[in-house]
Amino acid sequence: MAATSLVLDPRAGASLQAQLAEALRSAITAGRLAAGTRLLSTRALAEQLDLSRNTVLNAYSRLLSEGYLVGQLGSGTYVARELPERLHTTRRARPSRASTAPSTPDLSRRARALTQLPDLRIVAPGIAPSQMAFRMGTPAVDAFPSDLWGRLLHTRWRRSWGDLLGRAEPAGHPPLRRAVADYLATSRGVRCVPEQVLIVNGAQQAMSLAAQVLLDPGEPAWVEDPGYFAGRGALVAAGATLVPVPVDAHGLDVEAGMRLAPAARLAVVTPAHQFPLGVAMDEARRRALLDWATRANAWIVEDDYDSEFHYVGRPQQALQGFAPDARVIYIGTFSKVVSPALRVGYLVVPEPLVEAFTAARRFADGHTPVTEQAVLADFITEGHFSRHVRRMRVLYGQRQELLLDCARRELTSQLALSPLHTGMHLVGWLPGGVDDRAAAEQAVRAGVMTMPLSSFRVRSTGQGALLLGYAGVPEAQIREGVRLLARALR
Amino acid sequence: MAATSLVLDPRAGASLQAQLAEALRSAITAGRLAAGTRLLSTRALAEQLDLSRNTVLNAYSRLLSEGYLVGQLGSGTYVARELPERLHTTRRARPSRASTAPSTPDLSRRARALTQLPDLRIVAPGIAPSQMAFRMGTPAVDAFPSDLWGRLLHTRWRRSWGDLLGRAEPAGHPPLRRAVADYLATSRGVRCVPEQVLIVNGAQQAMSLAAQVLLDPGEPAWVEDPGYFAGRGALVAAGATLVPVPVDAHGLDVEAGMRLAPAARLAVVTPAHQFPLGVAMDEARRRALLDWATRANAWIVEDDYDSEFHYVGRPQQALQGFAPDARVIYIGTFSKVVSPALRVGYLVVPEPLVEAFTAARRFADGHTPVTEQAVLADFITEGHFSRHVRRMRVLYGQRQELLLDCARRELTSQLALSPLHTGMHLVGWLPGGVDDRAAAEQAVRAGVMTMPLSSFRVRSTGQGALLLGYAGVPEAQIREGVRLLARALR
Repeated sequence: MAATSLVLDPRAGASLQAQLAEALRSAITAGRLAAGTRLLSTRALAEQLDLSRNTVLNAYSRLLSEGYLVGQLGSGTYVARELPERLHTTRRARPSRASTAPSTPDLSRRARALTQLPDLRIVAPGIAPSQMAFRMGTPAVDAFPSDLWGRLLHTRWRRSWGDLLGRAEPAGHPPLRRAVADYLATSRGVRCVPEQVLIVNGAQQAMSLAAQVLLDPGEPAWVEDPGYFAGRGALVAAGATLVPVPVDAHGLDVEAGMRLAPAARLAVVTPAHQFPLGVAMDEARRRALLDWATRANAWIVEDDYDSEFHYVGRPQQALQGFAPDARVIYIGTFSKVVSPALRVGYLVVPEPLVEAFTAARRFADGHTPVTEQAVLADFITEGHFSRHVRRMRVLYGQRQELLLDCARRELTSQLALSPLHTGMHLVGWLPGGVDDRAAAEQAVRAGVMTMPLSSFRVRSTGQGALLLGYAGVPEAQIREGVRLLARALR
Repeated sequence: MAATSLVLDPRAGASLQAQLAEALRSAITAGRLAAGTRLLSTRALAEQLDLSRNTVLNAYSRLLSEGYLVGQLGSGTYVARELPERLHTTRRARPSRASTAPSTPDLSRRARALTQLPDLRIVAPGIAPSQMAFRMGTPAVDAFPSDLWGRLLHTRWRRSWGDLLGRAEPAGHPPLRRAVADYLATSRGVRCVPEQVLIVNGAQQAMSLAAQVLLDPGEPAWVEDPGYFAGRGALVAAGATLVPVPVDAHGLDVEAGMRLAPAARLAVVTPAHQFPLGVAMDEARRRALLDWATRANAWIVEDDYDSEFHYVGRPQQALQGFAPDARVIYIGTFSKVVSPALRVGYLVVPEPLVEAFTAARRFADGHTPVTEQAVLADFITEGHFSRHVRRMRVLYGQRQELLLDCARRELTSQLALSPLHTGMHLVGWLPGGVDDRAAAEQAVRAGVMTMPLSSFRVRSTGQGALLLGYAGVPEAQIREGVRLLARALR
């Protein structure tokens, strides 16, 4: 439920409770809260809106008595399927729709394309997605050393708030650039000097900048199919023509790419751990990709998004280090190790591109906030980062095993899961002919969040599958999630 | 350090320790471990490589005795600056300059345009720009309530670190959106509901998003001439065709704009306090601009960058509030009140555009870090923000007066300064015929940073002037700066 779309004004005439009831009522009649939607618990909504729980309880009661809601306070309240008024729905919920602003506003082509990209989040009404098995891409925030981080934050602020509030460098806080260069050399075999490292607001911005700097509107770019969705969004924003290139058990099918668009400007790949299939790009493919890029004067954008978490044997070296003289832009992120909310990622770019990337960054949004960068640099150089990665590697390895164990016992016929050496999610293959979107919807109605593989496909087809994130899901929730999923898919 | 590229084979003839020493040695001679690099601790490297710590200690000792490393085991070991072999060092400084990457790389047209935009910072060698009179655009960081902010940061982290690390909304942290909507309604006469407020990484990102969402590559956009430079960069990045429109004593010359590009897609303006001239757009011009936008189906981007600081009479209401139903995108920032390093700004967009701006933001870089947003929301809702603005208004007013006083005594013939009702800088007009760039260079050699007005001009011409920031400059530095400037311009 979009709690933020409820506008309550403590200074207005009506009581907050009446205002809340009215806001909910109009969200329901306008269809923003669809029939059958489960509302947030009164406690959760009270917290969201900074209201007392009584205020929310009273508003809910009122709507229950008026017939807008059904169910029971305390056990689950839903938007009624039969609403008391059918007429009012037109546009009441949009208080500030500008009268002279057009209703289909004149957007740029890229903005129209971006708004048409689907939102992949399948959210169970009434349950916060951050609380559900098998949410994707989020680390185990509960296992994060928050006291330690809080202490580093406090110390750093006390010691050098003047520096933290001073103007910063667009390319990043120098101590963090050095720490990242050292870390990448050691752990990922990336070969670079700190000057090649640019600190950005997460992998998403890294991808946006790469697209902006390396291709002109209309130029073709290879994307993995199936592939990472938000990365595609960054390319669309830059006006790229997407060329979906199939992925098989060896990674991106480079020959297919060369047939489809031999003169593409860039190729976005996840060689260490393909998203979402989890395969690693083999050496022959790596060579072929690097050769193509050299011949075509194209760029390879290597998104190394979660290879910190490798459970068996040695991690595969980054493509960048495999051929450090090649045309590779390397992207990494702290979202998977610390948190996506931190918004810190990085690019390693060939030295001749540093200036252009820095300029693009400067004019995009200046720089990444300095406090986060400084604390993160401390976190790394004091050794906490490696320690945390090692701890999480053990934890996530155990969670993956638990998920596999439970699935072996309870999901055999409905979903085939195999172990993956790397990453934070598994791919559960559905029996032939089963529609994965329908399966994901069944699952979410049972309270389990999965992502259908076909949402990540552009043109490729193939067996349906559900992606199950496990890294950020506590053990009890994994067990319960498998049970619910087995029931939902029966 | 590329641990993963260190190939150690337990079955090989040489001991692991000898293999490790050799691998490190060749990484150093090949320049992959640059001179001065601090190595990982022996413990950390041992863990990374799954070796015993003794193996690593012995390898390090060996390289220390051979002169490849310097320092002390246990307290810090570094790659020596003078290596025992000199032959291998050719590429040490730039180990990864790509040999197959072209030296003038294939950049996109927008990247080339961005790298060609001049960097306006005129920096005196040896003096940090952040320490010089008359630096522009920075608030009085020394007067910032840093203890209070540190306390809010600490409290917020302790209370809700789990929320701060959870996934956030692309449009912004709801309590901050509400706080900004309230603040703008009260202080700037902006009319909006919190749903129209999008929290972004500073005004620069606001401008980038506006350009990206509202215009297609090649489409014309009016910019003020002279005008804000980094705003122009955001438009260039989006592929806009810039149409410089002259500014006079009444603000942007709307008629000139209509002659130059009647069908422009958008107009970027600073109506409250034109940057850099400091004039306010009068009511006739405001009407003309709004009328044009309605007729042309164009958008007005109102950059209200520093109108918090108004010293005389009442601040002019925002254009957005002047005609809230019109096609106005309102941009504001916390850079001038808190700090540019915070990277928090906001957009207020007409309701039909909220979705497109949110999508563009999501695909640009996700969202603004949550910790900053939460602390800022606390700072505002607990009343500290208004208090700080009021204090700074007094302080900056005094600093402006001091600058005017000193200039009246010591700069009369060289520089004509007049008071401005708003903002953080003054315009010092040079005598006719004096080149302002040359004057600024003379000044910086004398230790005073100013910005020549002509750097902000695109096509317009006119008398030379120096822009003098005073808000972030302590009183003693203002006095000294005027003395130095008088001497430099003599």
